[in-house]
Amino acid sequence: MNFCNQCGAKVEFRVPPGDLVARHVCDSCGTIHYQNPLLVVGCVPEHEGRILLCRRAIEPRRGFWTVPAGFMENGETLQQAAARESHEEALAEVEIGSLLTVVHVLHAHQVHVFFRATLRTPDFGPGQESLEVELFRPEDIPWSDIAFPSTDFTLRRYLEDRVAGREPHHFTEVDRRLSRG
Amino acid sequence: MNFCNQCGAKVEFRVPPGDLVARHVCDSCGTIHYQNPLLVVGCVPEHEGRILLCRRAIEPRRGFWTVPAGFMENGETLQQAAARESHEEALAEVEIGSLLTVVHVLHAHQVHVFFRATLRTPDFGPGQESLEVELFRPEDIPWSDIAFPSTDFTLRRYLEDRVAGREPHHFTEVDRRLSRG
Repeated sequence: MNFCNQCGAKVEFRVPPGDLVARHVCDSCGTIHYQNPLLVVGCVPEHEGRILLCRRAIEPRRGFWTVPAGFMENGETLQQAAARESHEEALAEVEIGSLLTVVHVLHAHQVHVFFRATLRTPDFGPGQESLEVELFRPEDIPWSDIAFPSTDFTLRRYLEDRVAGREPHHFTEVDRRLSRG
Repeated sequence: MNFCNQCGAKVEFRVPPGDLVARHVCDSCGTIHYQNPLLVVGCVPEHEGRILLCRRAIEPRRGFWTVPAGFMENGETLQQAAARESHEEALAEVEIGSLLTVVHVLHAHQVHVFFRATLRTPDFGPGQESLEVELFRPEDIPWSDIAFPSTDFTLRRYLEDRVAGREPHHFTEVDRRLSRG
């Protein structure tokens, strides 16, 4: 961030009075520009024992497989965001179920939230951001070609819980920040 | 948003190619400025059957009571954010427990997340953003002076669940947007 999005003046990066963290501060209009984690929301859509995965048509991780997920928009719930992403990326209508995983992706300043979901009918196809969309039996999931650690974690917990017949939620974190030692 | 925070040029508000939603777009450097929901994170700290509440020293809702909560910062987990807010607002050291509530505050573009928590010792006091901090027996909670709907919802679910001896999580939404009819 170089300029104030309110008044257009140059911003400085420093700790404002009464704060503990450095922020982008505009000395011209007084605005303090906070930067906070973004929510990425998705689901694991299941249809008759098979899991819907999308092969990414965009970077990062183009060509790798993921469950439908994306940035949450203003004015929607987490569940609505998860359903919207399934519609956009996989042209699929899903019923969102219970909370499955929350993954803190600390280096990316993101919180990833995934739900269990049911594919209402086996109708789907690649949206703009997908190269292909496919239903996988658990034993056929392409584990070495999964796009993100949060996707891998989420799919593994989903399958384990399904075998156990339970629906708990799971927290974890991914941290690729350089150590500060 | 009036100016691009990357290059300082004026931004326009329109639907970018391939998108479905209007964004602030910079035609000078090509940056699309997305605006997404923010996470507000807090907890319900309990000590020997009593609940820790803070009376707000800042707007909005100055003078009203709330549990410790605030905006999540980059580089921390939800649990760390909840503990940090308890430290900042109530000078209290808490042990964060299970997920309690998720409140979609749709008009404010916020997702509020609350955890159960335990106050390690009955040591606390008003931080910079609190007028006073107090432990309340459930029957003494000042319901008519609670700051926010998400706080009210969270405290009620907390107390109900405690009576039932269970620790589920609860989703709800608050929507004060004008109808678009």
